[in-house]
Amino acid sequence: MNRAALIQAIRSKKSVLCVGLDTDMEKIPKHLLKENDPVFAFNKAIIDATKDYTVAYKLNTAFYEAQGIKGWESMAKTLEYIPEDIFTIADAKRGDIGNTAEQYAKTFFQTYPFDSVTVAPYMGADSVQPFMQFEGHWAIVLGLTSNKGSADFQLQQSGDELMYEKVLKTVATWGTPDNTMFVIGATRKEQLQHVRAMLPDHFFLVPGVGAQGGDVDTVCSNAINKDGGLLINVSRGVIYVSDGEDFAEQAGKAASGYQQQMAKYL
Amino acid sequence: MNRAALIQAIRSKKSVLCVGLDTDMEKIPKHLLKENDPVFAFNKAIIDATKDYTVAYKLNTAFYEAQGIKGWESMAKTLEYIPEDIFTIADAKRGDIGNTAEQYAKTFFQTYPFDSVTVAPYMGADSVQPFMQFEGHWAIVLGLTSNKGSADFQLQQSGDELMYEKVLKTVATWGTPDNTMFVIGATRKEQLQHVRAMLPDHFFLVPGVGAQGGDVDTVCSNAINKDGGLLINVSRGVIYVSDGEDFAEQAGKAASGYQQQMAKYL
Repeated sequence: MNRAALIQAIRSKKSVLCVGLDTDMEKIPKHLLKENDPVFAFNKAIIDATKDYTVAYKLNTAFYEAQGIKGWESMAKTLEYIPEDIFTIADAKRGDIGNTAEQYAKTFFQTYPFDSVTVAPYMGADSVQPFMQFEGHWAIVLGLTSNKGSADFQLQQSGDELMYEKVLKTVATWGTPDNTMFVIGATRKEQLQHVRAMLPDHFFLVPGVGAQGGDVDTVCSNAINKDGGLLINVSRGVIYVSDGEDFAEQAGKAASGYQQQMAKYL
Repeated sequence: MNRAALIQAIRSKKSVLCVGLDTDMEKIPKHLLKENDPVFAFNKAIIDATKDYTVAYKLNTAFYEAQGIKGWESMAKTLEYIPEDIFTIADAKRGDIGNTAEQYAKTFFQTYPFDSVTVAPYMGADSVQPFMQFEGHWAIVLGLTSNKGSADFQLQQSGDELMYEKVLKTVATWGTPDNTMFVIGATRKEQLQHVRAMLPDHFFLVPGVGAQGGDVDTVCSNAINKDGGLLINVSRGVIYVSDGEDFAEQAGKAASGYQQQMAKYL
């Protein structure tokens, strides 16, 4: 999906909500375990209930990979089931050199045709640029993450800036706002404003809303741009609101609630 | 495999050779394409021909993932086929926070029972430590890589040291030399001596020998320690020496040649 189509979806739905399908066999409602493919059954119901409020779905590949081949089958079926006008993210955080990066790009842009994949920057340009060579596909590069460990390296001084700032500025020169997004797990006002000032045009994938403590108003009011420019991911706060028979209905209500908070800014 | 067993293998074979099974459908001999599972057929022949000279096999997961489910099947069969006394590495370069990292650890230590997995450090402690919690299993953390892009961030100044030095020192405090190795793609004498002085006891996985320009003598003479302390990976320089009917025989000769170079130091 290209930038114009993504912006169109954001305007038409008045939403920058990304629902994270971190589907965990141990957390889905017990009545689904009798299904042939409980993970897909769960995802299908969540997608049906949330798709009107959602402009993106993010599949955390670790949860699928841990299930082995049946996990990859669930991932493929889920990807196939997501409506065409919704942006898809393989949250796989891959990162390796040249010919290996090309194999990962092939994995997530062709074998499993996601619109985008998350990429780790540590190995530098030749590990990131191969993901920027596919028309209509995106590299979503880790910039500033929302976990405690982000302090270990990302927030360390590097010359006259912090390492994550160097990463954002450097990676931005390798691609364009049409093929590059950044993971920005900022939850504080000043940080969000600072990052948006550095990168006025790029889309940010913002995790950490809901269970991880961020809130929609802070993110939108400080980092939205003229195109939306955000995909705010909520996983547990949508998909695991209820573990009863009503799980999908409750997920839909939660997604609708997030969308209404976002609509004020769009 | 624990440290004692790995050291035992190194001493008994007089080798620190790791053969990289970066098995690419486009590079394997054409006569194998008629096999039901050409990737496994190739790997099986390579393992048979090289196992006497080799203390580790490294599977570059990207090449398997790009093939979808049949790739994961080839990976599983290959892993099962590797003799028990040879160390196995999932070169997957995973890196994500807490519960996601646990899913990746489950993927590569349980669903696919590798001895170790390569891990990217950018997200910090809570993305690396979950891989250090499995008895007899290892996190092999990216330190200094051998690609051109290593200059972009790893070689940037961070306070009074370089970023990769900070990564090595910091990550070393999270684990022990019994559950943590580092990827050290150094090819220059001074760098190898410097890193070994920083981390006298840790094992280093050293890529970049052969096709990428490094040589065995430089690595061994500057970075070997009393336990060996090295796994020197060669991929193309062993597995793709010939693309004819004699590919396995030639791979065996190449592996034997590397082992003989290493034996002088062990």
